[in-house]
Amino acid sequence: MQVTVSRKAHFNAAHRLFNKNWSDAKNNEIFGLCSNPNYHGHNYELIVSVTGNVNHETGMVIDLKILKEIIYQKIELHLDHKNLNLDIPYFKTIIPTAEHIVKYIYEILKSEISEISEKLKIQITLYETPRNFVTYPATI
Amino acid sequence: MQVTVSRKAHFNAAHRLFNKNWSDAKNNEIFGLCSNPNYHGHNYELIVSVTGNVNHETGMVIDLKILKEIIYQKIELHLDHKNLNLDIPYFKTIIPTAEHIVKYIYEILKSEISEISEKLKIQITLYETPRNFVTYPATI
Amino acid sequence: MQVTVSRKAHFNAAHRLFNKNWSDAKNNEIFGLCSNPNYHGHNYELIVSVTGNVNHETGMVIDLKILKEIIYQKIELHLDHKNLNLDIPYFKTIIPTAEHIVKYIYEILKSEISEISEKLKIQITLYETPRNFVTYPATI
Amino acid sequence: MQVTVSRKAHFNAAHRLFNKNWSDAKNNEIFGLCSNPNYHGHNYELIVSVTGNVNHETGMVIDLKILKEIIYQKIELHLDHKNLNLDIPYFKTIIPTAEHIVKYIYEILKSEISEISEKLKIQITLYETPRNFVTYPATI
Amino acid sequence: MQVTVSRKAHFNAAHRLFNKNWSDAKNNEIFGLCSNPNYHGHNYELIVSVTGNVNHETGMVIDLKILKEIIYQKIELHLDHKNLNLDIPYFKTIIPTAEHIVKYIYEILKSEISEISEKLKIQITLYETPRNFVTYPATI
Amino acid sequence: MQVTVSRKAHFNAAHRLFNKNWSDAKNNEIFGLCSNPNYHGHNYELIVSVTGNVNHETGMVIDLKILKEIIYQKIELHLDHKNLNLDIPYFKTIIPTAEHIVKYIYEILKSEISEISEKLKIQITLYETPRNFVTYPATI
Repeated sequence: MQVTVSRKAHFNAAHRLFNKNWSDAKNNEIFGLCSNPNYHGHNYELIVSVTGNVNHETGMVIDLKILKEIIYQKIELHLDHKNLNLDIPYFKTIIPTAEHIVKYIYEILKSEISEISEKLKIQITLYETPRNFVTYPATI
Repeated sequence: MQVTVSRKAHFNAAHRLFNKNWSDAKNNEIFGLCSNPNYHGHNYELIVSVTGNVNHETGMVIDLKILKEIIYQKIELHLDHKNLNLDIPYFKTIIPTAEHIVKYIYEILKSEISEISEKLKIQITLYETPRNFVTYPATI
Repeated sequence: MQVTVSRKAHFNAAHRLFNKNWSDAKNNEIFGLCSNPNYHGHNYELIVSVTGNVNHETGMVIDLKILKEIIYQKIELHLDHKNLNLDIPYFKTIIPTAEHIVKYIYEILKSEISEISEKLKIQITLYETPRNFVTYPATI
Repeated sequence: MQVTVSRKAHFNAAHRLFNKNWSDAKNNEIFGLCSNPNYHGHNYELIVSVTGNVNHETGMVIDLKILKEIIYQKIELHLDHKNLNLDIPYFKTIIPTAEHIVKYIYEILKSEISEISEKLKIQITLYETPRNFVTYPATI
Repeated sequence: MQVTVSRKAHFNAAHRLFNKNWSDAKNNEIFGLCSNPNYHGHNYELIVSVTGNVNHETGMVIDLKILKEIIYQKIELHLDHKNLNLDIPYFKTIIPTAEHIVKYIYEILKSEISEISEKLKIQITLYETPRNFVTYPATI
Repeated sequence: MQVTVSRKAHFNAAHRLFNKNWSDAKNNEIFGLCSNPNYHGHNYELIVSVTGNVNHETGMVIDLKILKEIIYQKIELHLDHKNLNLDIPYFKTIIPTAEHIVKYIYEILKSEISEISEKLKIQITLYETPRNFVTYPATI
């Protein structure tokens, strides 16, 4: 049986939900306050879970110091104190909903962790607020 | 791959664990303090998780404003500041353990969310206290 | 300078806000859902803070094992899994608002802790829900 | 002795720290990432504490339903999902640091609560992140 | 469908990560500060999840009073206020990483809970710090 | 009126409560499990509060980046992953109770922050566990 190791991280960012193909009225109807043209923001909390076998010599699935450093270099430095719509090229065409952000983070970290081992599986949970959060891949 | 979207909610309620087919002595033996005939109560915390595909136009699995409103109308207004045994017809014959409450909430929300889409799967976690909680359907 | 030592505890209870001198209509107007005649309930979280000098031999203001035991014997055993209105004589005539409960707990613990030392000052914070709490004596 | 009653609330907003009288270089040196011209954001958590005597008829310092409504009408509707620098006139000339935001919220709520009673004292704690928070008036 | 019932517990312990077959230099390289020969420590938080059918008479998957007592007798009394490397025979030869501790706790509790019913499945989550935690069996 | 600015930090450490002038029996009687000769440990959470006037140009009481760096350099690097009794000279003669640790941290940070301004007042809260914490100087 395998063990899942999880690490929490966080970043603060501004964003706006807006579909360029829609009128302002439709954006307002679907996204409501989240569509404020001047942006609003969140303290995003992130849980990165890595599943794999426990190494017999180290007693670890993955060295948490390395995982922490990957999250810092690839996610925190990249997204913290940013405007997701304006500062992150990926979100110039993709609406930065929590669902899209969690998939974006998954792809970046999946690629990094695959370099350590192809066998490691990952899952990301992203809290947009303490009451709203998303998980990818899905839990059910 | 699908994304799971989760929303927290809460309600405060009184309840009592009591099996009408048992003697008071047996109720006391099995349920202990939870069987106090004058009731006790909890701040129930609720996590509603919805799994599905991400809509390409909205970037969402389900509109959280709609999910929040369903939880408010069907669960919070229904259960908040209530005595589960006396005020909720379902619990006149069913013992309001956390296991039974979580299934009851699941059935109500499953029916509501199926009207949005038959493809959406849901899972409910109910905290009776910060140290005791139940999840339905099961996580393992 | 003195140190404040704090200990968290908790109890679950049912209650109802109701002033016997008022009509049902007035109780409803003032207390709203909190006046439900069948009661509702909470997971009360309690912080007991004790201020005093640090004993040179033990390095402690008060032995936390003793403080924990006093809170358990005098508050948790007394209030946990109870209906405050029906099971606690004090609240037969006093409305069990958070303000009145925190004063009641203060008087019980003040008396107990004075037996250890007259010089120890205490302050109680009571969470009725994670979003509503009261402190006695006042913090400002 | 008086009781302090506290209520938590929250709002999500974007902001930027920027002193118009300084060069970009100096803004960068003093405010660092917080000065990103495209803004970043936070989930602000707010604790509003009100101190006063307990009313003998209601058992309350202040009706929490009224306090909750004041916070909703005057703070949450006003600041939630906003860009503090662009959408809130007060912060067009005042830098929206946590210190300035907490004072701004204090002045609005102090004025509202004084209309209920001149004798009520208030104190505000504002969490900008789970690790950074400010309190006004000061606690020490 | 089955329900998962979860109970939180905690213990405080000292430990050190150290592989006897490696040089001090290699231990330092792999385990860093966690290899301090004088030990360091944690407040370990534990979630024990039990999955099974709901008993029709009790409305429970497992009596939480019994589960709480098993965790207390077999885990808390055994590990609380201990030095894992020196006081727990199992960790004289096995490195007390979070991965190994969670497996050790799983084996103890699996054996205890199997005596209640062979059909109950269990899963353990162990928080070493609020930001680092492990789950066994794996969640993904 | 002044504002209080607070910053949370944390460190993990092992310790043991032991008075060299007492017999083992008396140490056991007073300190119980906390006196285990092989040590136990905690995730210490720290809140550093600084009170002062708000600077008109920066909108700040103290630059949080500087406060964070002081806490990191003087407290976290000094105490994290350490055995307080063996690795920290001050605790070779002083029992490392939470009361003594919070005073020790206060003296270090008071000295550092006085170099920024003599007018700044500080207060430290130290959580030994989520249920036990101490504050210096005292809050009441």
